Amino acid sequence: MTSPILDFLRRLHAELTDLRDGEVATYIPELGRADPEWFGICVVTAGGHVYEIGQTDIEFTIQSISKPFVYGLALEDNGREDVLAKVGVEPSGDAFNSISLEPGTGRPLNPMINAGAIATASLVPGETALSRQRRLLHGFSSFAGRPLAIDETVYNSESETGHRNRAIGHMLRNFGILTEAPDPTVELYFQQCSISVTCRDLGVMAATLANRGVNPLTAKQAVRGEYVADMLSVMNSCGMYDWAGEWIYKVGMPAKSGVSGGILAVLPGQLGIGVFSPRLDSHGNSVRGIKVCEALSQRLDLHMFNRRGSRQGAIRLHFTGAKVNSRRVRSSTEAATLQRHGHRIQVVQLQGNMTFATTEAVAHLVAERHDDLDYLVLDFKHVLSINDTAARLVYELATQLQAEGRHVLFTRSDRVPLLARVFRHKLGTDFEERFISFEEEDPALEWCEERVLAARGAPIPDQKPPRLVDIDLLRGLTGEELDIFGDHLERQQFAEHDLIIQVGEEAGELFILFEGRVSVFVGSENVQRRRLATFSPGMVFGEMSMIDRSPRSATIQADSPVVCRVLTREAFDRLGVEHPSIKIKLLENLSQALSRKLRKANLELSVFD
Amino acid sequence: MTSPILDFLRRLHAELTDLRDGEVATYIPELGRADPEWFGICVVTAGGHVYEIGQTDIEFTIQSISKPFVYGLALEDNGREDVLAKVGVEPSGDAFNSISLEPGTGRPLNPMINAGAIATASLVPGETALSRQRRLLHGFSSFAGRPLAIDETVYNSESETGHRNRAIGHMLRNFGILTEAPDPTVELYFQQCSISVTCRDLGVMAATLANRGVNPLTAKQAVRGEYVADMLSVMNSCGMYDWAGEWIYKVGMPAKSGVSGGILAVLPGQLGIGVFSPRLDSHGNSVRGIKVCEALSQRLDLHMFNRRGSRQGAIRLHFTGAKVNSRRVRSSTEAATLQRHGHRIQVVQLQGNMTFATTEAVAHLVAERHDDLDYLVLDFKHVLSINDTAARLVYELATQLQAEGRHVLFTRSDRVPLLARVFRHKLGTDFEERFISFEEEDPALEWCEERVLAARGAPIPDQKPPRLVDIDLLRGLTGEELDIFGDHLERQQFAEHDLIIQVGEEAGELFILFEGRVSVFVGSENVQRRRLATFSPGMVFGEMSMIDRSPRSATIQADSPVVCRVLTREAFDRLGVEHPSIKIKLLENLSQALSRKLRKANLELSVFD
Repeated sequence: MTSPILDFLRRLHAELTDLRDGEVATYIPELGRADPEWFGICVVTAGGHVYEIGQTDIEFTIQSISKPFVYGLALEDNGREDVLAKVGVEPSGDAFNSISLEPGTGRPLNPMINAGAIATASLVPGETALSRQRRLLHGFSSFAGRPLAIDETVYNSESETGHRNRAIGHMLRNFGILTEAPDPTVELYFQQCSISVTCRDLGVMAATLANRGVNPLTAKQAVRGEYVADMLSVMNSCGMYDWAGEWIYKVGMPAKSGVSGGILAVLPGQLGIGVFSPRLDSHGNSVRGIKVCEALSQRLDLHMFNRRGSRQGAIRLHFTGAKVNSRRVRSSTEAATLQRHGHRIQVVQLQGNMTFATTEAVAHLVAERHDDLDYLVLDFKHVLSINDTAARLVYELATQLQAEGRHVLFTRSDRVPLLARVFRHKLGTDFEERFISFEEEDPALEWCEERVLAARGAPIPDQKPPRLVDIDLLRGLTGEELDIFGDHLERQQFAEHDLIIQVGEEAGELFILFEGRVSVFVGSENVQRRRLATFSPGMVFGEMSMIDRSPRSATIQADSPVVCRVLTREAFDRLGVEHPSIKIKLLENLSQALSRKLRKANLELSVFD
Repeated sequence: MTSPILDFLRRLHAELTDLRDGEVATYIPELGRADPEWFGICVVTAGGHVYEIGQTDIEFTIQSISKPFVYGLALEDNGREDVLAKVGVEPSGDAFNSISLEPGTGRPLNPMINAGAIATASLVPGETALSRQRRLLHGFSSFAGRPLAIDETVYNSESETGHRNRAIGHMLRNFGILTEAPDPTVELYFQQCSISVTCRDLGVMAATLANRGVNPLTAKQAVRGEYVADMLSVMNSCGMYDWAGEWIYKVGMPAKSGVSGGILAVLPGQLGIGVFSPRLDSHGNSVRGIKVCEALSQRLDLHMFNRRGSRQGAIRLHFTGAKVNSRRVRSSTEAATLQRHGHRIQVVQLQGNMTFATTEAVAHLVAERHDDLDYLVLDFKHVLSINDTAARLVYELATQLQAEGRHVLFTRSDRVPLLARVFRHKLGTDFEERFISFEEEDPALEWCEERVLAARGAPIPDQKPPRLVDIDLLRGLTGEELDIFGDHLERQQFAEHDLIIQVGEEAGELFILFEGRVSVFVGSENVQRRRLATFSPGMVFGEMSMIDRSPRSATIQADSPVVCRVLTREAFDRLGVEHPSIKIKLLENLSQALSRKLRKANLELSVFD
């Protein structure tokens, strides 16, 4: 199948191939050797899907596009305060090679002009020139997701002709922004500009910025997430020099261009764009590159300020314990109690990237349902990430509800380790010491149900083995019939963890549980094992395979030492011949139980629909 | 319950109340009457939740915060081209009252400096001063969601002292940017600055921008969505004058401040912030206002460039027809065929705001599953919005699949009218003429299943009434038993649309369908009516209430003229006494059918879990 997205890029590429305005840069002689026809476009999503067309594999030197990345490395290695002391973040309104030092401090106005970039390069740590260069290459390679190297020919060409940049270096030394001899730092700056990349690399590097510093192809963190906003902010304000206002107005994405013909643009949280075509306009930007970004922004509606609000935020699904129950099989009295009082259990399934704005919807929902809420289950199964603010908001909600005597339960909170860290930091103790945490929504729901039932005076489950007369399946049987039925049963005993029924087995007995507790699972021990139901004494299991003679559809395991009495299919058949009235009553009771379970399953399906 | 979000704002408000730096503006004498202690904070989400603390109801004049809004109105009334001819979008790097005209054209550099704002005000249409003022007030009131008015005292004070702005007006007339006498436009500019607002109004206006021009409280469009990005772009580049770079670096939200002490900031797609406190710093920005925005950005992690990517995009849930089936009740042969070949039906439930970046995930999924896909159901039930790009991407996917002989079905596409418009525009004909559209996922799934079954050689449903011996429920009965059973049935006939069973009824017959087709519904005719199942001849319905004596849980309606044969509970009881072997066989068959349905329901639940 040809991807319609690739088709779109192919058409755009063909359309702009005819655009031959502009000139290849020659002020660094080696750059002049570029083929002016080279033209590549690469779009990489924050999810890691790559769409590329044209010459996306040709290597060229990164030039000024290196500036935001070295800025990111400088922030990571020195911290924000030290970096801001050396270089500002204010646009200069001037061209790329302007000196633009701040009156008084001598601080370059921003890291995107050469003066600021040289000041930034001075912050790359290392004992020797080689170790500083290694730090650079390691950082850039993490962004690109492959090992990058310096193009020595271009570097030598830059170094031979870079008089203006040497002058800037000395000016910075004069103002004390550089504290040592400027030459090694200026050389490092030439080296950063001479790192060899492809158009595809630019796309991946952009997508890494769109993905808060995590390379979406390698899943590795290229720069600490907290510094990505700094890098994008200076690209936003100063990335396109004296054209920044119009660029954001028209294209609406932080971007950076280089004189070798590359442009890198970032739509935060969504995607990265790399374009390469060597002919430049009078601002020093790739002519086709600009047109590609404008076309992508307009035709794909990518402008970062063209966004709609969302009402649902982090809430994927919300339901109460009156509508959906745990897999614990309930007696009819218990089921009725839960239907009446289950609304006091509120279950919220969360989703996506939890931030203040998306988590606010959860706080709002809790406030709205507050009077009706004794139990709140927050299920993190579908959450992709949580940030510190959202974690603190969850903390505030949880502790406040707890202080009011309400219960907050967390499920799958292992997906968001930051949440536990925030709780530990705030509480001074582990998360689990104060809050109830489950691996799945189902047992959390059961926990709440047990308490709702207890509060409504549900009888405490009898620890004595049930009498036959109390068993739902045997309802309506006379004393004599019960005795006859009892004679058809076999006693079976199981130790804790024993498998009573294994999925796929052909056997067809029906089990009446007399002592202990058993759970039904789907999935194997190793794969995703999920509890379907838990049974307590007096309940019946295994009846479905006995009835329809199909293989066992689930595994049943003893949660404790278990005593069952078992009705084989043969005994059941025999009952039909010898005592048809007993078999009719059993079948009626069985059908009723199945019917009740089916009604419940249909009700739950209506919630998820 | 006290909201933790409000608690946070309350603490922030208390903490910053002690900050008494700065001076109340006095250059317009009337502004000097403000109480320097006034302090309000209001956060409004794009979903319309309002959080406010302090003096959020005190009225003050909007001053420069009017500039982006008049810019929006000018764009709406004149179009982008005409507006850009009069005023640029490039930051000036200068203070708010700078004249900053572009060399050559005389065009003010941007609409946020006074010169640009006066040029913008000249574009507000109207025959008379009054009609132009009405246009202004109407536009601003839509943003605030309540009728706003001009503070005449402040307006007079501005008008009396506004010599510098009159000078700017004449300068603009000199350069031909204003084409008529400047005074009426300068007066209109004084009026726009004198519109009375509260801190809460600022919050709502900001949230309207965050919500792409739709006021989240009134749900009314205040400005065409396409111009919101223009407004936010100039706020981003020039909203905070010579402090724009640092503002975006630190706060990361497009914003605008005014000399009366207001600041309005927007986190696109998420929320709006209004702050009011009259003491100003040397840049003319509210001292506390700046601190509030910095604190909100840092503590709530609101920086617009601090975003993570999302892998799931617009895909809420994806499953195949092998896992989830339609509500059409199937024979066991049909069910087996669907289990084997249903993977050729792919159902994608979509969600959220569909844009290029979120919809790309759908294109990627389709490409990945392409070889396994004969039927694609796209369900728009959970979609909040779609933009043009996403609609075109869906169009490309759909037409390409169709050209390959595959089927694309749309459900609930009425939620996204733009989709139908894009298809109509591209196809030159209505959506429904080329594609299959359903109101719900369920019948769409059934449509696909029918075709999968037909392609796998499933027998064409017999149009003749079934014989008793072919009915699943009667499996295993001897010829003599069938005759006896037949004598216990009553014939009943229904016209098309007749209600055969009504939800809540106490009756307990079991129906065997002989001719025609019936459907099961939950919900009433007026409320949300949802089909649970459709039955064809030979199938049985109503058995659950007969078995468990509970009221009918759904409504069953004749889809066509229908003939049933009915077994009453009395007749069923009579059978048990007179012919127990028949009743045992019936109950066994019934239990098997229930058991099969329950297995299927549990399988479906596992998909949604």
